Amino acid sequence: MQNGVRLTPSREMEDALMYLPRRGVTGYTKGQIIFEEHNPSKGLHLVVQGRVKVFIPLDNGAQTVVDIFTTDDFFGEHALLGDSQLPERAVALDPVSLMSWTSQEIEEQVERQPRLGVALLQMLVKRVLDYEERLQSFAVDKTPERVVRSLLRFADRLGTRSEDGAITIPPLTHQILSEFVGTSREIVTFHMNHLRQKGYLRYSRKGIQIYVEALREHLQQRVGQESGWKVNEPDQRSTAIDQP
Amino acid sequence: MQNGVRLTPSREMEDALMYLPRRGVTGYTKGQIIFEEHNPSKGLHLVVQGRVKVFIPLDNGAQTVVDIFTTDDFFGEHALLGDSQLPERAVALDPVSLMSWTSQEIEEQVERQPRLGVALLQMLVKRVLDYEERLQSFAVDKTPERVVRSLLRFADRLGTRSEDGAITIPPLTHQILSEFVGTSREIVTFHMNHLRQKGYLRYSRKGIQIYVEALREHLQQRVGQESGWKVNEPDQRSTAIDQP
Repeated sequence: MQNGVRLTPSREMEDALMYLPRRGVTGYTKGQIIFEEHNPSKGLHLVVQGRVKVFIPLDNGAQTVVDIFTTDDFFGEHALLGDSQLPERAVALDPVSLMSWTSQEIEEQVERQPRLGVALLQMLVKRVLDYEERLQSFAVDKTPERVVRSLLRFADRLGTRSEDGAITIPPLTHQILSEFVGTSREIVTFHMNHLRQKGYLRYSRKGIQIYVEALREHLQQRVGQESGWKVNEPDQRSTAIDQP
Repeated sequence: MQNGVRLTPSREMEDALMYLPRRGVTGYTKGQIIFEEHNPSKGLHLVVQGRVKVFIPLDNGAQTVVDIFTTDDFFGEHALLGDSQLPERAVALDPVSLMSWTSQEIEEQVERQPRLGVALLQMLVKRVLDYEERLQSFAVDKTPERVVRSLLRFADRLGTRSEDGAITIPPLTHQILSEFVGTSREIVTFHMNHLRQKGYLRYSRKGIQIYVEALREHLQQRVGQESGWKVNEPDQRSTAIDQP
């Protein structure tokens, strides 16, 4: 966001895990479906290990990636509304282990431990704020900025810091990035190559190394250059750089 | 959404209002700021009457409209995370009356009445799903479809059905619509005129009458026509109709 201020909460955050009974862990193999339209989420899932992609499939075989969840993330929360035929799927991107609670178990546990309710509320408020930031990016950013913001977001959510100050995220295909950003695989590849040539990214077997400070500065400069840019002018959303 | 299925929850929905102590109502005049960056939301607000616009201001004076809230809607929930300097503002679009609870009051009430926690969780899950639909629309729709979906959404959220089957929403400027859709005011005007000429909309002093069934069919047809359309091809996102 142009004025995007990172949220630094002053209140103590509740940790839902403190109030949830431990469960046996269920394993999923890479590529395995965790829930889908006809076998919807029955409750809340916690990622213990691995990464889970949640996405909305489209009629034509394409998809929109809602998010990628990793260790200590909760997902599948729409089950709290009941048996909805929601067109949403979750698939294991790695070998994944999950701890799961049914909606009824969550509700019963909230009644026993109301602080769990507060903890889950805070978790969902953070998700709402994250989505608002993404909606704003879609509304005002051009594709190159959306790619950069997505990389910074994944660095924040999925990354581990390495010795040289870069943040390494596990391998993410350009296809997945494009389904998150809302553009084509080809355009993501074009921008990723550009960012790599400029030294903001490095690929290794471990994944993508992102030089977040430099990349954030790069984004600031891009946004700064466009200070005269009328954010609501959609014909300026596709620039020459959009078409490789 | 192409596969967008309306959520029809089978579980009984909790109603947060049942568990919240009644409060005195605070009035705001049209145009009055309810919260902003330097005077952030201190808790949860319930709209008793009128409409509230929540938006993210941008450096250049533009803004992204997060949503418009009306009677029985809650907003300002980010206060549950504490004193954040969130770049978000709420302004009264009409003379507005609100009932408000501080974050601390909400937390205390959740401890007394854990079902309030469940009710607020369900409310936030619905918001998350709504935002996911909007993210998907940004990712795959072109501007004309985004305008139509926004109208259908506002009809659903803000409208009242009139005798001829249309749904009337209170006056919404093209400027606000454009800040919600993420396009320019001019382009919204162009599409609104088009929809009016085709008989999907009518303007009156009471607001905008939307022939939702016909408009929904129109959207289906547009999406159907594009069944061969590769959703991830951004160069197809701006068609001739985008540039009036």
